[in-house]
Amino acid sequence: MSDNRTIFFIIGLLLGAVAGGMLLPAMADATIGHKDWQVFIASALVTGFIAGALILTNRGKLPPLSVKQAFTLTSLSWLALTGFAALPFAFGELDMSYTDAFFEAMSGLTTTGATVITNLNSAPPGILLWRALLQWFGGIGIIVMAISVLPMLNIGGMQLFRLESSDTSEKILPRTAQITGSIMRLYCAITLACVLCYLAAGMGMFDAVAHAMTTIATGGFSTRNESFGAFGAPVAMVAIFFMLVSAVPFVAYLQLVNRKFDKFVRDEQIRTFFFLALIAALIMWLYQLSMLEQKPTQALLSAAFNTTSILTGTGYATTDYDAWGPFAVALFFILTFIGGCAGSTACGLKIFRLQVIIKAGWRYIRQLTRPNGVFVIRYNGRLLDDDVANSVVAFVLIFILSFSAIAVALSLMGLDPLTALSASAAAIANVGPGLGPEIGPSGTYAGLPTQAKWVLSFGMLLGRLEFLTVLVLFAPSFWRR
Amino acid sequence: MSDNRTIFFIIGLLLGAVAGGMLLPAMADATIGHKDWQVFIASALVTGFIAGALILTNRGKLPPLSVKQAFTLTSLSWLALTGFAALPFAFGELDMSYTDAFFEAMSGLTTTGATVITNLNSAPPGILLWRALLQWFGGIGIIVMAISVLPMLNIGGMQLFRLESSDTSEKILPRTAQITGSIMRLYCAITLACVLCYLAAGMGMFDAVAHAMTTIATGGFSTRNESFGAFGAPVAMVAIFFMLVSAVPFVAYLQLVNRKFDKFVRDEQIRTFFFLALIAALIMWLYQLSMLEQKPTQALLSAAFNTTSILTGTGYATTDYDAWGPFAVALFFILTFIGGCAGSTACGLKIFRLQVIIKAGWRYIRQLTRPNGVFVIRYNGRLLDDDVANSVVAFVLIFILSFSAIAVALSLMGLDPLTALSASAAAIANVGPGLGPEIGPSGTYAGLPTQAKWVLSFGMLLGRLEFLTVLVLFAPSFWRR
Repeated sequence: MSDNRTIFFIIGLLLGAVAGGMLLPAMADATIGHKDWQVFIASALVTGFIAGALILTNRGKLPPLSVKQAFTLTSLSWLALTGFAALPFAFGELDMSYTDAFFEAMSGLTTTGATVITNLNSAPPGILLWRALLQWFGGIGIIVMAISVLPMLNIGGMQLFRLESSDTSEKILPRTAQITGSIMRLYCAITLACVLCYLAAGMGMFDAVAHAMTTIATGGFSTRNESFGAFGAPVAMVAIFFMLVSAVPFVAYLQLVNRKFDKFVRDEQIRTFFFLALIAALIMWLYQLSMLEQKPTQALLSAAFNTTSILTGTGYATTDYDAWGPFAVALFFILTFIGGCAGSTACGLKIFRLQVIIKAGWRYIRQLTRPNGVFVIRYNGRLLDDDVANSVVAFVLIFILSFSAIAVALSLMGLDPLTALSASAAAIANVGPGLGPEIGPSGTYAGLPTQAKWVLSFGMLLGRLEFLTVLVLFAPSFWRR
Repeated sequence: MSDNRTIFFIIGLLLGAVAGGMLLPAMADATIGHKDWQVFIASALVTGFIAGALILTNRGKLPPLSVKQAFTLTSLSWLALTGFAALPFAFGELDMSYTDAFFEAMSGLTTTGATVITNLNSAPPGILLWRALLQWFGGIGIIVMAISVLPMLNIGGMQLFRLESSDTSEKILPRTAQITGSIMRLYCAITLACVLCYLAAGMGMFDAVAHAMTTIATGGFSTRNESFGAFGAPVAMVAIFFMLVSAVPFVAYLQLVNRKFDKFVRDEQIRTFFFLALIAALIMWLYQLSMLEQKPTQALLSAAFNTTSILTGTGYATTDYDAWGPFAVALFFILTFIGGCAGSTACGLKIFRLQVIIKAGWRYIRQLTRPNGVFVIRYNGRLLDDDVANSVVAFVLIFILSFSAIAVALSLMGLDPLTALSASAAAIANVGPGLGPEIGPSGTYAGLPTQAKWVLSFGMLLGRLEFLTVLVLFAPSFWRR
């Protein structure tokens, strides 16, 4: 047996943070005198007890993680956090089944934003705050993972984002820790800025805090049934700005802080992301003008808001865009897959993978006509290894196969094709709302069969942990020796 | 300008064969005194005239084809043949629009089997025979292409099927010509055997000939609205046998003739194909027994017939399997993609690609956990180059992306999700019937919008020519220099 104390110690620390986080909704409920505060305190005690036990029994001088342990830790920690984060949903006033509670917690921690709560307007503040906190935790968790864990594991081309080209872990670790610290401070600062902007745009304090947390996490949980349809145009504009901000690699902002403006501006991934966001909003705007009777400014805002929300994987809505007709539905479906930049809180395939795939595709086609030619791929000015290109191609294929498998599984459970396809895509790309009357922007996932909710929870985990981190655990060879 | 006479000369020869083929339906119509015989004679004259002009103006000592010219020839010849093969449909009694005529001809030559003719039972014999002949031509065309052209062009891992490991074209060409000759004789012999079996099982002469040609081509055009629902159980059993026979690489039969039985029996692709066909039939049989009230023997025949028909990309039906419920629909949808063996007349992704993808996937996952390990892939006992594996992965990705692009395009034209998805899959995998009430086994493609028919015709061409052969022509770099 190998020494797994480090895994359990870290999970203990993370559960401790969750237990601490539960005290905030407890305070919110206690302030207005809602009895759910007891549920949050009880959940915090249970979680804190397990956390304490794990920390105490595994402390001491801990061995460094092996590659296999890093894989195990990633999946296991996310599952453990979800399991405990679900407690307040299961035992609170909403009285959800554990299936529903787990789904909601997974949707929160993976920053997906799919919900099974049918009436948010009457939900107690503690639950609303807890949903926002889960997404906010999930958001920073994913950024830290993208910096520290994924590049080390060579997942889906993330080796491109290694901080140093030298591979010695002695040098990387302290530097990673330092950067992680800076990024956490940055994450808090951007969230605070978002709160202030929402307040300035006319939101109340509670809504501003809750929405700022889910905006920066590109999570998409709202405190209202109508999502952003409940607020005015200025609030929607603030949301568009901060959704875009959160879909950019957070490391890039450190470059801004260090006054390396040109590196930020010339980054291929960032440029393409903004270009795509602009094009999507424009196409949808023109489509709305040509098809639906709306004021041009109103149409522009609603086109920009909803395309940005789906592209970044947030999942807010200002209106039931599902009813805009087949062209809009198809466009939203495509946007669901794309996602934001790697290293941000945004989800989906990620812009750099699309770029690498397209470049590799071109190279392959050129190679076909000139079998003896030598062609290279560059990304951000650097030569791209064949390893990285192959790894990206494999990732995209696994993404598509997982999407198909989940869609087929949902069909077998009796869901209609549009619901099955869009639910699978929305879960895997961590977007949240699907398409169609049931799970579209005006619906919820509450009515789905129990097995479908578990399959979708698994899909959200797969998508958020970049598939291979989870799937590798199912390989028999992983457990050998 | 390069010397393209060889391309035009070969297209001329092929068009000459088409013109000759048109005389057979002319005779069939003349025999029963149907006036369509004039249409076939006129079409033969037009096609023959163009063929003659191409042959006469480009004959002489012809230069060998370059790689680029081989690509051009493949796509161009298929398009030219379809364009002329559509003439009898457009000018015959059925009075089809050129869109419909082109769709039907493309569906024939690509051995797809999707039809826009709503009432086959009242169609003149000439048209029915012409549809069968087109599929029969298409079937042998694709086998010859898989032996001679695709391996040379390194398309989607087909380099695995190069006849010699030495790459010098002087040696390969005569050997290829010799094998092509043997395979053509074999193709005729198997078709004749199929005709005799159909006759013995109780079919009439005309139906036996027409169905034998579309069975061996795994094409799926029938002479009846009810497809094989119009015939008895013995006929269906004959069809199952010959559909399976036609989904095996024809080169493998040459090994049988040369008494290399063990090579045939040990071939990984053939074994897996039969295993899959068996499993699919069994699952569907058990499902039918558990869900639908049917006699076990009847259920077994209908399960085996319809799963074999879809897996091999034939597209016959004995019943409206579309009404068997969501589980059956999902299973048929998956079977649509898989297809038969490379080097047969069957369509779809092909068994060997699935095998290579699965092996490459396992290797990739093992590599993730042991970054410094060296893992190799074997196929049929031989080491698999990384080149071949990458080429297969790229092929599967292009397959899926083409499928998605066509499905999205069809959605934008207003088709519902199940129709759009299954139409795209059925066209790209050259299966024929889709799912859902409109284009399912009991419907036709007649009611689709005109643009949808063109998009699907393009999809059939893409699928049959293995995507890259066509797509490479759209690369600007192909036309440079």
